[in-house]
Amino acid sequence: MIDKKDLENLKKIVGEGNIYDDKAHLIAYSYDATRERHLPDAVIFPRDEKDVSEILKYCNQQKIVIIPRGAGSGFTGGALPINGGIVLAMEKYMNKILEIDTQNMVAVVQPGVINMDLQKHVEELGLFYPPDPASEDYCTLGGNVSENAGGMRAAKYGLTKDFVMAMRAVLPNGDIIRAGKRTIKDVAGYNISGILIASEGTLAVTTEITLKLVPKPTFKKTYMGIFPSVDNAMNAVFKSLSAGANPVAMEFLDKLVIKSLRQKLNVDLPEDAGAILVGDVDGNVSQEIEFQLEILEKSFKENGATKFRIAKDDEESKEIWFARKNASPSVTIYGNKKLNEDISVPRSRLPDALNAIYAIGEKYDFKIPCFGHAGDGNIHVNVMIDKSQIEEGHKAIREIFELVIEMGGTLSGEHGIGTSKAPFMSIAFSDEEMNLFKTIKKAFDPNNILNPNKMGLM
Amino acid sequence: MIDKKDLENLKKIVGEGNIYDDKAHLIAYSYDATRERHLPDAVIFPRDEKDVSEILKYCNQQKIVIIPRGAGSGFTGGALPINGGIVLAMEKYMNKILEIDTQNMVAVVQPGVINMDLQKHVEELGLFYPPDPASEDYCTLGGNVSENAGGMRAAKYGLTKDFVMAMRAVLPNGDIIRAGKRTIKDVAGYNISGILIASEGTLAVTTEITLKLVPKPTFKKTYMGIFPSVDNAMNAVFKSLSAGANPVAMEFLDKLVIKSLRQKLNVDLPEDAGAILVGDVDGNVSQEIEFQLEILEKSFKENGATKFRIAKDDEESKEIWFARKNASPSVTIYGNKKLNEDISVPRSRLPDALNAIYAIGEKYDFKIPCFGHAGDGNIHVNVMIDKSQIEEGHKAIREIFELVIEMGGTLSGEHGIGTSKAPFMSIAFSDEEMNLFKTIKKAFDPNNILNPNKMGLM
Repeated sequence: MIDKKDLENLKKIVGEGNIYDDKAHLIAYSYDATRERHLPDAVIFPRDEKDVSEILKYCNQQKIVIIPRGAGSGFTGGALPINGGIVLAMEKYMNKILEIDTQNMVAVVQPGVINMDLQKHVEELGLFYPPDPASEDYCTLGGNVSENAGGMRAAKYGLTKDFVMAMRAVLPNGDIIRAGKRTIKDVAGYNISGILIASEGTLAVTTEITLKLVPKPTFKKTYMGIFPSVDNAMNAVFKSLSAGANPVAMEFLDKLVIKSLRQKLNVDLPEDAGAILVGDVDGNVSQEIEFQLEILEKSFKENGATKFRIAKDDEESKEIWFARKNASPSVTIYGNKKLNEDISVPRSRLPDALNAIYAIGEKYDFKIPCFGHAGDGNIHVNVMIDKSQIEEGHKAIREIFELVIEMGGTLSGEHGIGTSKAPFMSIAFSDEEMNLFKTIKKAFDPNNILNPNKMGLM
Repeated sequence: MIDKKDLENLKKIVGEGNIYDDKAHLIAYSYDATRERHLPDAVIFPRDEKDVSEILKYCNQQKIVIIPRGAGSGFTGGALPINGGIVLAMEKYMNKILEIDTQNMVAVVQPGVINMDLQKHVEELGLFYPPDPASEDYCTLGGNVSENAGGMRAAKYGLTKDFVMAMRAVLPNGDIIRAGKRTIKDVAGYNISGILIASEGTLAVTTEITLKLVPKPTFKKTYMGIFPSVDNAMNAVFKSLSAGANPVAMEFLDKLVIKSLRQKLNVDLPEDAGAILVGDVDGNVSQEIEFQLEILEKSFKENGATKFRIAKDDEESKEIWFARKNASPSVTIYGNKKLNEDISVPRSRLPDALNAIYAIGEKYDFKIPCFGHAGDGNIHVNVMIDKSQIEEGHKAIREIFELVIEMGGTLSGEHGIGTSKAPFMSIAFSDEEMNLFKTIKKAFDPNNILNPNKMGLM
C-alpha cells in the first residue's frame, strides 16, 4: 500500500496533474480486455524516460508495486493491478513517433504510440510495418513488444520480435539501459531485447523502440477457398505452405463461425461450407502474385476445396475480409460468455488439433467456434458458455491445453500468459523451466515490484 | 584445477575413451580462429544430453570450469580455455541431423552438425537454410547459435536468430530445459532462446536446435557493380535498398582488396576501380529477378557506377564470386599480421565510416583493406600490420571502435566479443548495461563455471 507521503514524493517527480488516486482515475485504469476489474492504488503519467527512471527508483526503494500499461487491450490480464500498486500509464505523454529514418528503413517510437498510427505514417512514405494485431486501431507498440504481438500478416512477415532492432528501457532499480542498435547485425553483449520482448512488463519498462521497416509491396490480391470440412481446409493450409506458397495471411473460419456470420450479420457465405480460408498474397511484380495464387489454387483443390475465388477489386477484397473481421463479435450467438484462447500448434497438427477440440466441445456440450491465423498455426478457440458454467468451461480449456501441449503446441500464440493463463503454466513447463523463469525475474527485479504475480511467477 | 578423482568421476559419466588429458588432445583443443593457444586441463566428449547434464552438475558442484566448443572456428576466442578448465567438445557424438519435418518446414539438429551439411541436406528436399557464415564448410550450428552467426545472405534472409524456433539446453546446474516450440508463434513464458542466442556459451550448453526452413527460391542471378570510389559504392548500397531492392547479398570490396586480388591471384578486375559491389538476387518468378536488377542498375548508375554486369550463367556467377570469396586470404600481401574486426553501422553511415577508417589507417601508416556485407552494414575491417606493431594496431582498432559506436554502430556484427573484443566493451556499454549483463550471467551461472571471463564479464 502507498501512503500520502509516497504520493507527494512521486508528485515531486512527475509534477502536478500527473498522479491521481481519485476513484474516477482508479476505475479508468482498473480493467483490460479480460473485462476483469482490479483497482490500483494510484495512476501515474510519466512525461519522459527520466520520470520513469525516478519513479521506479523510488518505488523500488519503498517496495511499491508498479504496473506498466499501454492501451489496456491485452486479453490475459497483463496490465491488471491484481494486488493494487501504481499503474504507470504510458499513453498520455510517451506517445510520439520520434523519427522515421527512410535511409535505413527504421522507425523510432515511444511505447505509447498506437500501432495503426505508425502503420499509416510509414505507408505514406512507401514503407511498411507488418505486425497487425486485431487491436491495431488502439493497442500500443509498447504493449506489442511486451506481448510479442502477432497478427494476420505474421504468416509471411513474422511477429513484433522480428521487427525490434533496438530498445531503451528502465530496470526496476531505475537504471536506464539501451539494447540493440540501428544495425541489421549486432552481436555485442547479451541480447537484452530478446528477453524483454514478450516479458509482459515484468522485467523492465520500455521507454523507446527502434523498429525495422520494409518496402511496401506494390501488388496485393485477396483469395478465398471454401472447403467441405475443417479437415480439408487444415490439410490445405500446411500442404500449400510446404509446396512453397508464402501468403501474407491465411485465415480460417470454421462451420460454427460461418453459421454465426450468416445468422447475425447476413454475410453471404454458403450454408453447407465446412470451413473457409481467406487471405492476401503480395509482391513486387504481378507474376509473383500469380505464382502464389497458382500454388494456393492447386493445393486447395487437391485438398477438396469446392471453390477458389480471387477478389477482382478492392470492393470484393473488403467483402471477403468482412467475414473474417467480424468472426469474433458474431460467435456471441452461442453463449453469453466467451472463453477466448489462442492456442498454436505445428501446422501439420492443425487437423488433429481441431478435431480433438470439437470432441471436447461435444463432451461438455459447449459450442467451440474456431477461427484465426491458420497460416502460422495459431487458432482462436472460443469456448462459448453461459455465465453459470465458468467452472466447466475452465475444465474444457484445461483439456484443450493438455492436448495442444501434447501435440507440440503452446499455451499462447500471441495473447501472452498474464493472469488468465497462469494456472496452465505447469502443463507446459517443467519445474526446471519455471525455476529458470523465476531466477530471471529475480535477477531483474529482486524486490518484485514490477508487475508481480503474472505469468505464473511470484 | 582438476585432479585424478575428478577425471575418474567424469569418466564414470561419459565412459572410457571419452575424456582425455594427454598432451595431444589438450593441444588439439587449445586454439580457435584467433590462432591463440591456451591448453585446457582436459577434453570431454558427451554422447548425449544426459551426459552434458551430468557433466555440468558434477562440475558445478566441484566448481570446475567448462568451455563448450563446436568447431573452434570463432574469430574472437569464445571457445578458448583461457584459464584452463575442461573443453566440452560437441562434434564427436552430438553431430546428427535428427529430423527434417518437411510438412512444417523445420529441421531438428544436434549442436555439432556442420552448417553446410544441413544446407546441402535440406536443399535436396527443395528447402533452404539461409544463414551462411564464411566458415559454413566447417563451423557448427551450435556455434552459430552461440554467436548468432550471420553471413552473406543476411541482407535478405536475416541471421541465425531469425531461424531458431526452439532449443534444448543444459543450465550450469545440470537442469535440462526446453525453450520455444515448433510453432511460428509462441509467447508462453520468457523468451529463453532469445537470451541464449549470442550468449557465447556463457549461460547454458545447447543440446538441440529446431531451425526454421524456407522454400528454396527457383531463380537466382549474380550482379556486379564497379564504382570509381568507396563513397559512390556505399551511397549505392543504402540508396538501392531504400529504393526497394531486396538482394540476397550485397558484398563490398575496396580498392586495396581489388589490388590484392589482382596481385596475388591474377583476378581480372579493373585496375582503376575504387570499389566493387557483388551479390545475388533471387525469387520465385523471373520477373522478380528483373525487378530487383532494374532497381540495382538504376541506383548503382545514379551513384556513379561505371559498370553494371549481370552474370549470364553459373560459370560467370562463379567467376564474379571468386573475387569476393578470396578477399580474406588476398589481403595478407599488406602485412604478416591481420587484425580482423567486423564492425557494423547503420547503412546510411557506411560512406562516413569507411572514410574515417581509412583516415585512421593513414594516421598510423597501416593499410586497412575493407570488404564484407555492405547490404546489412557489416564490414570486415582488416588492420594489416607487422607482428612488431601489435600495440599500435590495437590503438588503431580502439579508434575505429570509438568512431563506429559514435555513429550508432556496434563492436561486432557477427564475430561476437569473446576475449579479443572484451577490452572494448566499455566503449559500447554503460556501467548500468555491463551490470545487467553480469546480473544475468550470475543468475544463470552463480558459480561462474561456464566459459568464464568472456564478453568482458567475470
